[in-house]
Amino acid sequence: MADNPPFAAPGTIVELEEGLALTPKFDAGGLVTCVATDAATGEVLMVAHMNAQALAKTIATGEAWYFSRSRGALWRKGETSGHTQRVVEMRVDCDQDTVWIKVEQAGGACHTGRRSCFYRAVPLGQEGAVTLEFREERVFDPKAVYREKPRT
Amino acid sequence: MADNPPFAAPGTIVELEEGLALTPKFDAGGLVTCVATDAATGEVLMVAHMNAQALAKTIATGEAWYFSRSRGALWRKGETSGHTQRVVEMRVDCDQDTVWIKVEQAGGACHTGRRSCFYRAVPLGQEGAVTLEFREERVFDPKAVYREKPRT
Repeated sequence: MADNPPFAAPGTIVELEEGLALTPKFDAGGLVTCVATDAATGEVLMVAHMNAQALAKTIATGEAWYFSRSRGALWRKGETSGHTQRVVEMRVDCDQDTVWIKVEQAGGACHTGRRSCFYRAVPLGQEGAVTLEFREERVFDPKAVYREKPRT
Repeated sequence: MADNPPFAAPGTIVELEEGLALTPKFDAGGLVTCVATDAATGEVLMVAHMNAQALAKTIATGEAWYFSRSRGALWRKGETSGHTQRVVEMRVDCDQDTVWIKVEQAGGACHTGRRSCFYRAVPLGQEGAVTLEFREERVFDPKAVYREKPRT
């Protein structure tokens, strides 16, 4: 399924911005950026990348697939951890180089054990070195979930 | 202000993920990704990039600054259009290559005139070519706002 992704090459700026065809503008590495938010709360859970195959599989199955830049591999979110993402809605941005998925997240999205990868706040209104503030507890133990396996 | 951004170089993975220092992991182009969401609704408004100076200015001022890859220039969001973003909260992700800002958006975030850049939905559950569905009306007329000026 979806081994030959059905996307045509991007057209003009007007076609990209105002057209009805999904023609993703993949970067030099063949990737688009994907923002995953919690469909219930709006919280940003993670930002990752999709190649054409990952994007096509996500559209076809309604489950989030990504492309891991560090491992150079297609990756079904949660295939190791069980922390899958069911996609409730997908949006594409004006120039079609980024997609936004609203998901139902099983467990936690972050390989560190937190629900969201954005578990630290950056205080505003200062000009010197910045000290982060932790805002989330772990929802799972990453050592127990991943052991020696890849982090998914 | 903030012409010499105060960020130290990234350390080990453990320091990046569990540390208290903001040490952004800029890409080869000197950029981190930034997701801006509506602080009230959770809607993703736009995804753009910040260099060290833009990030430092955003932290110091509480107004969103970006770096335009197409124009190769620092860019205060709304400096042409008036559609500024007041940052209510900033988060950084586990490996510190992406920030998330929750903003109060004046007018619309998208240069096409919509409130969000993600004004088209991608239908799920299909394997062929994908036809997008418009989900948002324009909230301003981009021709009237930008005329011959840069799109900000």
